[in-house]
Amino acid sequence: MSIIPPRTLKGFRDYLPQTMAAREQVIETARSVCRNFGFAPIDTPVLEYSEILLGKGGEESDRQMYRFEDHGGRDVAMRFDLTVPLARFAAQHVRRLGTPFKRYHVGPVWRGENTQRGRYREFVQFDFDTIGTESLLADVETLVVVHDLFAALGFEGFTIHFNNRSLLNGLLDKLGLEDQAAVVLRALDKMPKIGPHGVSEELRRAAGTSDQQVNSILALAGLTGTNDEVVAALPAIVGSSPRAQTGLAAVEEVLAGVRASGIPEERIRVDVSIARGLAYYTGTVYETFLADLPGIGSVCSGGRYDDLASLYTKQRLPGIGGSLGVDRLIAAMEELGMVDESAAAADVFVALFVPERVGDYLGLAAELRAAGLSVELYPEARKLGAQMKYADRRGHRLAVIIGEDEWDSQTAQVKMLATGRSTEVPLSQLGRRCSDMLEEAG
Amino acid sequence: MSIIPPRTLKGFRDYLPQTMAAREQVIETARSVCRNFGFAPIDTPVLEYSEILLGKGGEESDRQMYRFEDHGGRDVAMRFDLTVPLARFAAQHVRRLGTPFKRYHVGPVWRGENTQRGRYREFVQFDFDTIGTESLLADVETLVVVHDLFAALGFEGFTIHFNNRSLLNGLLDKLGLEDQAAVVLRALDKMPKIGPHGVSEELRRAAGTSDQQVNSILALAGLTGTNDEVVAALPAIVGSSPRAQTGLAAVEEVLAGVRASGIPEERIRVDVSIARGLAYYTGTVYETFLADLPGIGSVCSGGRYDDLASLYTKQRLPGIGGSLGVDRLIAAMEELGMVDESAAAADVFVALFVPERVGDYLGLAAELRAAGLSVELYPEARKLGAQMKYADRRGHRLAVIIGEDEWDSQTAQVKMLATGRSTEVPLSQLGRRCSDMLEEAG
Repeated sequence: MSIIPPRTLKGFRDYLPQTMAAREQVIETARSVCRNFGFAPIDTPVLEYSEILLGKGGEESDRQMYRFEDHGGRDVAMRFDLTVPLARFAAQHVRRLGTPFKRYHVGPVWRGENTQRGRYREFVQFDFDTIGTESLLADVETLVVVHDLFAALGFEGFTIHFNNRSLLNGLLDKLGLEDQAAVVLRALDKMPKIGPHGVSEELRRAAGTSDQQVNSILALAGLTGTNDEVVAALPAIVGSSPRAQTGLAAVEEVLAGVRASGIPEERIRVDVSIARGLAYYTGTVYETFLADLPGIGSVCSGGRYDDLASLYTKQRLPGIGGSLGVDRLIAAMEELGMVDESAAAADVFVALFVPERVGDYLGLAAELRAAGLSVELYPEARKLGAQMKYADRRGHRLAVIIGEDEWDSQTAQVKMLATGRSTEVPLSQLGRRCSDMLEEAG
Repeated sequence: MSIIPPRTLKGFRDYLPQTMAAREQVIETARSVCRNFGFAPIDTPVLEYSEILLGKGGEESDRQMYRFEDHGGRDVAMRFDLTVPLARFAAQHVRRLGTPFKRYHVGPVWRGENTQRGRYREFVQFDFDTIGTESLLADVETLVVVHDLFAALGFEGFTIHFNNRSLLNGLLDKLGLEDQAAVVLRALDKMPKIGPHGVSEELRRAAGTSDQQVNSILALAGLTGTNDEVVAALPAIVGSSPRAQTGLAAVEEVLAGVRASGIPEERIRVDVSIARGLAYYTGTVYETFLADLPGIGSVCSGGRYDDLASLYTKQRLPGIGGSLGVDRLIAAMEELGMVDESAAAADVFVALFVPERVGDYLGLAAELRAAGLSVELYPEARKLGAQMKYADRRGHRLAVIIGEDEWDSQTAQVKMLATGRSTEVPLSQLGRRCSDMLEEAG
């Protein structure tokens, strides 16, 4: 029989235990934080009718979609994000579930992108949204969720930058550029890549703005200082149109709410340069940056939208949400040395020595598990060297070694694998002593 | 703008919060049990080259596969189980990872089946396997994992039935039917559906067996009694060929190992009627049944295979594993009333009354979360009735109500939503008192 070469598709990859253990930890942390705020989980099918997905993410997204005809002749496609499925889901179920509807959703999405620069065609997203309320309390809570999530993941230097779309709209009102919002947003969103000069060029070319208008827009986007300084400087720049007033009041209210929630001041920044290219955001927009890895851009972003599901229902569904790129975040955590390499292995490795005693080893492993330890028992009575090599490679922390003599004296050798230090422990105390040693080692 | 009807594809469904919370609990429990035994997580892409998947699950599986051409003209398909991707994964990575390799893998799989009788085209499986060892200790451990998993999920009446393929092979040796193993297995696997008479008919027709041969086969498959009685009766039936000896020794060793691991006798049964239709099993095979729902068949099954990945590598990879149909198990748990309907809601609901005090509510919610409670704060200062109706519908357990008077006196009304009983609690003790009330209510 000829061998089929074992390989993954271009742009796809396997997750080996260490990386997958990190992904599980990130997802479990995100779930736990969201549940703490009353978000509930949902799931939607990977496949949708193509008409549900087409045209929602723009031309590029349509072109990159994995789309085909199923057995029943239906035109179907694999989801490219979790937002469009949420819109469809909300239109279908929200009457029954009631609002505010707070959900989180984690799963893979697919985009047939170019695979250069470490981009993959399958990646996992974690989204959370609050639907059916215009209350700014939901905006505050969204930012607090992001804060608690990154704190729980163990990040120290992270900052959530937030803005409100109405500030820029207010300025455009003042400048007589009301109709150019989309063009201006697109240009501003490129700031990190093309700089102020590039943005100026694009504004002149695409929106026909004057030098003075360009300068006002760049003055807004370039505003820096403490949160209070920025808030104090804004009114003079954005003017006093109704949209400007709305934006100013919203920024102040969200900032006050985040402070009232006990978020440290250095974790949150009013940053009027945050544009978020997507046209559907209408109020608060935010991005999250890691101080130690500024180059990777935002690791968690989102914003407020006026109407999530207008394509599928006449019921108006305003809301706010966020999206965490799980795989991208794990790559960042690996780069920062934050991934626990032993997370994929059981705490305790039990070597198997005396084949006639296999029942005793099994009973001992069961006892240790009942004492709250995770335990891997080697399945074959191979030489000690081979078994210890396996335990080292797997990343176990403790090895329990019991030969015929130890069975007779009812003791075990317990070895800390990181230090190589061995201790003799009576079997009757083994569970407690292993727990203590793991705790001491931290 | 015309409305696109919001709908899911035939055979697909959304998971609403309560069902999804149950799925998360089942998966988290399965993960935790597997990790306790040293299994590590992996993931593989949903899409594979079609040549990897084709021909592995039989003709029906090929026909039901979601298969299409991707943007690069590749012939690709969505996985229909987690075993074939594991075989490909093992062939690709096992040299680096080393053996024994113990992995678990959870994710959706797709089969374009007929959708009658509650079958879906997308469903979640949880698989765990130990690869690279022929030691029967891995067989024992597999059964102990299944036991610990169902015990941890809260099932009381479940039994794991195990058998060994070599017993039947021994009998076939004795009857001179060595070449008919596949046909006999297929017939025996239909026993629950067509009964002994149907099996007899099929054996005569497909394998040309004599009455005496049929009777011997049915005598084996019909053997009942305590585990010790069945083990004692086996040698006389299956004879003394090398394969029979292997099977007898294996059943005794696995039974002894399971007992040594402390599994209660009523949870495990030597059951020679367990056939498992799949041809690739070579040793231990097992199924798991729920006493309260015998009609749904096995909820967790698996067995030992000689060589997982021979299609993709020349390295021999024996192993043993199991597969849990997560969605099917949740349907069973719903039927048995085992799904906690409040699992999708935060413990504590905080009503919002005094809009000017929104910062105080936010600070209070943060404090309660810091005290270990999950808290949902209503985002709008609507009428109490509307807020309480929302809390009831969501399934919160406690409601915290603080109006202007309560803020002044620094107290809260805490209401147990199940009983309607209210208690006045000083704000300074709120976290602790809420925790106590939740604990008392169980």
